[in-house]
Amino acid sequence: MNDKHKYHDDRYSGAVYSGAVYSDETPIAAFATIPGSSALTLIRCSGKGAIEAVSSVFAPDKLKVASANSVVHGWIVKADEKIDEVLVSVFRAPKSYTGEDSLDICCHGGASAGKAVMEALKSAGFRGALPGEFTFRAFVNGKLDLTKAESVIELVSAKTDTSRRHAVSRLSGSLQTEIEEIKKTLVQVLSGAEIYLDYSEDEVGADIEEDEGKLPYPDVALETLERLKKLSDSWRIERVYQEGVTVVIAGCPNAGKSSLFNALLKEDRSIVTEIPGTTRDWIEAWVSIEGIPVRLVDTAGLRNSAETVEKIGVDRSRKLLQEADIVLYLIDGAQGITEEDQAFIDGGDGSGGAGNSRLLVWNKADIAPQPAMSPVPNQNFISVSAKTGEGLARLHAAISSAIQSQQTTPQSALQDAPITAAVGTERQKKLVDAAIAALEEALALARRDEPLDIIAPLLRDAVNSLGEITGEVSTADILEEMFSRFCVGK
Amino acid sequence: MNDKHKYHDDRYSGAVYSGAVYSDETPIAAFATIPGSSALTLIRCSGKGAIEAVSSVFAPDKLKVASANSVVHGWIVKADEKIDEVLVSVFRAPKSYTGEDSLDICCHGGASAGKAVMEALKSAGFRGALPGEFTFRAFVNGKLDLTKAESVIELVSAKTDTSRRHAVSRLSGSLQTEIEEIKKTLVQVLSGAEIYLDYSEDEVGADIEEDEGKLPYPDVALETLERLKKLSDSWRIERVYQEGVTVVIAGCPNAGKSSLFNALLKEDRSIVTEIPGTTRDWIEAWVSIEGIPVRLVDTAGLRNSAETVEKIGVDRSRKLLQEADIVLYLIDGAQGITEEDQAFIDGGDGSGGAGNSRLLVWNKADIAPQPAMSPVPNQNFISVSAKTGEGLARLHAAISSAIQSQQTTPQSALQDAPITAAVGTERQKKLVDAAIAALEEALALARRDEPLDIIAPLLRDAVNSLGEITGEVSTADILEEMFSRFCVGK
Repeated sequence: MNDKHKYHDDRYSGAVYSGAVYSDETPIAAFATIPGSSALTLIRCSGKGAIEAVSSVFAPDKLKVASANSVVHGWIVKADEKIDEVLVSVFRAPKSYTGEDSLDICCHGGASAGKAVMEALKSAGFRGALPGEFTFRAFVNGKLDLTKAESVIELVSAKTDTSRRHAVSRLSGSLQTEIEEIKKTLVQVLSGAEIYLDYSEDEVGADIEEDEGKLPYPDVALETLERLKKLSDSWRIERVYQEGVTVVIAGCPNAGKSSLFNALLKEDRSIVTEIPGTTRDWIEAWVSIEGIPVRLVDTAGLRNSAETVEKIGVDRSRKLLQEADIVLYLIDGAQGITEEDQAFIDGGDGSGGAGNSRLLVWNKADIAPQPAMSPVPNQNFISVSAKTGEGLARLHAAISSAIQSQQTTPQSALQDAPITAAVGTERQKKLVDAAIAALEEALALARRDEPLDIIAPLLRDAVNSLGEITGEVSTADILEEMFSRFCVGK
Repeated sequence: MNDKHKYHDDRYSGAVYSGAVYSDETPIAAFATIPGSSALTLIRCSGKGAIEAVSSVFAPDKLKVASANSVVHGWIVKADEKIDEVLVSVFRAPKSYTGEDSLDICCHGGASAGKAVMEALKSAGFRGALPGEFTFRAFVNGKLDLTKAESVIELVSAKTDTSRRHAVSRLSGSLQTEIEEIKKTLVQVLSGAEIYLDYSEDEVGADIEEDEGKLPYPDVALETLERLKKLSDSWRIERVYQEGVTVVIAGCPNAGKSSLFNALLKEDRSIVTEIPGTTRDWIEAWVSIEGIPVRLVDTAGLRNSAETVEKIGVDRSRKLLQEADIVLYLIDGAQGITEEDQAFIDGGDGSGGAGNSRLLVWNKADIAPQPAMSPVPNQNFISVSAKTGEGLARLHAAISSAIQSQQTTPQSALQDAPITAAVGTERQKKLVDAAIAALEEALALARRDEPLDIIAPLLRDAVNSLGEITGEVSTADILEEMFSRFCVGK
């Protein structure tokens, strides 16, 4: 039996949520949007008595009688002083995100109004929500399973449109459905085994068939194993969509690193964030390359402070190159291959990371086209001009293809193909793998004709692991760990 | 006649809004909250056909029949693909912020979801809203007057709780009411004059009384003038609440400038924002001192790079000291008065700004108390210990009192006294002053027994200025200038 299962309840079905440190129905409130220089700020409230509590700091006195899913206009007041003019959406249990009485208070933006409203809410009995506490309550109240809950964080932190599409697929229940279907087939096998065990204990009759004591539905078990393996595999590419890959631009001074960095940024309309590099020695930005979030790093800033290419090998740049998934090495076409370039191509400069891909890029192709015969035997260069934009589409394709070959995932998985069920978190992946391990062990034992009473518990472990993915089987520790990774207000 | 009045319609009452470059009823959409790492993002939509337009990218098909002020749960969809799970609040004209059909779409936070929803909205016929366009439409549709509209920007940018209270007062209509009351009394005087003019043109009868041709209700006119002057005066302190004052901490190396800066920040629970000083030579932060937003500047960073106190007088520090409303000059109590300190006290170091106040602060009072007899004749020092917090309350009071005396405003105005009607923008202040100028001229002419037909147009000018404050009298140019200062989404 596996250590991973130590928190499991012994039963393989039915909700066995066993309490949490997150508080129960106390009314909670939190900013659901970023307070700051915006038109509006949204404050979310939920819990038993939440409507009455907001009503105590709201005028006119219309909230308590407001119908479910209605919006009420009025003022947050405190000791008869008007705090802010607001719109309040009223939701009544169980028809709300959390399944509790809930309110969304839409107040004015800026630093002061939201803060003053929040203070009024605290005086009315609300406490600040813990990270993910709204979604936690939604889970506890059966509004969503854990795969949907996790897809909410995933959606909020999606870096590209493709990442968002994958998260939305899980939010819509694609993974939950797949897990439940797989579990159902496993339960079928498990039930068969258990019926036999019950039966064989009670009576040894004349009707025992030839395959008595054997694993029932072995084909179903094998099919299920394949389905689980496919799901486990899906994490490789899902992780890329969530976490992205790091592409570092390197090369000699004046090879045009900054120009290429800017050209990739400018051309790409899906830029998500640009990380201010004021206090750093390098510049980085997230760009979307064929839907994959790419952290593009320009080491140019570093070069400016060091000036000699020899120094690029040391310290920070070495670290950057080592954490790179892909290195774009720029050749200054006007200059041709320098000694340093040759050292890098030969891999003799010691700056390479383990297992990263290197793309050699021939820059300044507009003024210095690449020679017809490759300047370095057995090396292909991608010709671009950061200045004119020539060849950038080819470079995009090469980067995307390098990522794909690193993930050893078929081409189709990286395209905007219809999204199939896929695991979306490390937690889910580990549980799928635990189910695979248990099922493989069960099948191995069955092949050796071991008795069903040692095979059945392994099947039950596999079922439990799957139940833990959706949260059908769960414990306080696991839930707390999971929801604490949410942002406050979710 | 005054140049300021050139945009005025000739009439002193009735809405004369004469069109705008801001478009009419086209559906507009905008982010009303800051897109980023938050639980939710709010997108606001408004305009003719807005409900139908959102409905075309929303599933299930429930929006078109949704009742006013109701919240509908569903998905934003595009070509049958689910974009994001959302809550949509539906408002039907004229019962909405803008007075048009409007929707608030509450989508998931993060960089991707809101962006994808916005794209879907644009494909459905929405265009991005101009700054302040929602509030502009609200004004055009008679939902609020200009003083309330302006208080919305004021509220969003309120730096302290007191600033917010003043903005909320105007949002509640305190200024609008005051302006309308004053205008009513002026219209009374003006009507009296016009009736006389009409009458005297028609017939010269026997019933003409002794004060014929004189300004009617002169006492009312004088009272009105006083009331207008009080309103004009109110801007001095309102501006302080909105824009704040700059307090610069100066002094010799090791006088404890950074410690005092941090002590004032730490002790003050109303800190609004801290401006990252990474790329600057000084550090600054907004703090609230008795409700007044104070931009507190520490010149310590500068000192670190210059090292000698002589250099503090030059360049940036000179500029900082010159833009200061108040300079806190720190003496190192353990060191006593240095030559440099003496130079500053004597004002001989050339670093002072025109008209700023200087407070001399005796720091390190915990280890080096101030001598019983002032170390510099005729100079008072405020004893503090930035380390223990001793004397900080005294320092607060001294800063507040220095601000008050600069504004030559009675003490009571700066306390949390009941808020009376006050002007909240430069625009309003100029128009009040224009009304005062016209009324004063009218009264001066009346005192010289000039004929009513040259006095009446001045009274009409005054009435028009007041009408322009609330927007009863307005033109496209003025409105465009005003609303373009709003943030998008308001």
